[in-house]
Amino acid sequence: MSQQYMKVEKIERGTVIDHILPSMAFDVLRVLGLSGLSTDKSMSILVNSHSKKGGRKDILKFEDVELSAEEANLVALVSPRATINIIVGGKVVRKFNAEAPKVVRGILTCSNPNCISNQNEPVTTEFKLGPDEGHRYVCTYCEREIVDLAKRVSA
Amino acid sequence: MSQQYMKVEKIERGTVIDHILPSMAFDVLRVLGLSGLSTDKSMSILVNSHSKKGGRKDILKFEDVELSAEEANLVALVSPRATINIIVGGKVVRKFNAEAPKVVRGILTCSNPNCISNQNEPVTTEFKLGPDEGHRYVCTYCEREIVDLAKRVSA
Repeated sequence: MSQQYMKVEKIERGTVIDHILPSMAFDVLRVLGLSGLSTDKSMSILVNSHSKKGGRKDILKFEDVELSAEEANLVALVSPRATINIIVGGKVVRKFNAEAPKVVRGILTCSNPNCISNQNEPVTTEFKLGPDEGHRYVCTYCEREIVDLAKRVSA
Repeated sequence: MSQQYMKVEKIERGTVIDHILPSMAFDVLRVLGLSGLSTDKSMSILVNSHSKKGGRKDILKFEDVELSAEEANLVALVSPRATINIIVGGKVVRKFNAEAPKVVRGILTCSNPNCISNQNEPVTTEFKLGPDEGHRYVCTYCEREIVDLAKRVSA
C-alpha cells in the first residue's frame, strides 16, 4: 500500500506564514493569539518541514485569517525572517517579511518578579527593541532585557 | 503571484492518523501526550481539511513515531472512527481503526470533585467503557459518567 498523499488545501482567502524557524510554529500561534482557537476554517501546521534550500522550517496556513502588518510583525518576536503571504481570490496579493516591532505592548511578560508589571497593578507590559542588531527587547519599566522571547509570551 | 504549493512531506517511517473529527487534532495530540512535544522530526497537522467524501476532517502525520495499538486506541476517546496508518520504508504497512479502549487508566480525570481520584490520594484514575453503543465512560471509583471526554484529558 503506497503512502497516502496528503494535500494542504489551496485556500481562497487567508494567510500563509512561511520560513518560520523549525519547531517554532506553536510559539507563532501563541504570539498571534490563535493557539487553542476553535475554528471551522482550515488550518495547516507543518513542523520541521524540509526546506528546498536545505534545513528545516515550519509553515502555517490559515483560511479566512488576514493578518495586519502589525500582527504579522509579532511573528518576528519568535521567528525573525518569517515571510507573510496574504491570499485573496486564491492568489498571493501581498508578501512581506515579519519585522521585529519597535515596541511590544501586552504580549510579553517581564521576567523580573519585582517589576511593576508583575505586581497585579493595572499596568500593561511594554518592551522596546534595542538599537543594536541583536533582536533584544528591554522592559520599559524595569529595563530588564528579555532573554528567551518565546518563553515570555503571555498565555 | 500564484499561491504557493505546500506539500506535506512523505515520511520513511511514522504514523498518519486520518479521519479525525474536525477540530479535534489538538485533543488527539493531548491524549497521546504529544502536545507541546519538542521534536526535530517532521509533524503535520491539518485542521478542518476538506474530505474527499465531503465534510471536514483533521489529519495528523508524525515522522518517526510508531503508535502501539494501545496508544492508537486512545485516539478513539476523542475521535471515534479515526484510522491509524503505520508507515515503514515509505509504505503503509498496517492500517487499523482506533477502537475505544475498554478501560482507561491515568489519562482522563473525573469530573466529580468529591471522587477519591480528586483528593490528592495516590490513586490512578480509571474509567470503564459502558456496555451500550454510546461511547460512554464511567469512573470506576464514583461511577460518575464522563460527559465531555475531550475536556477530561489530563494535561
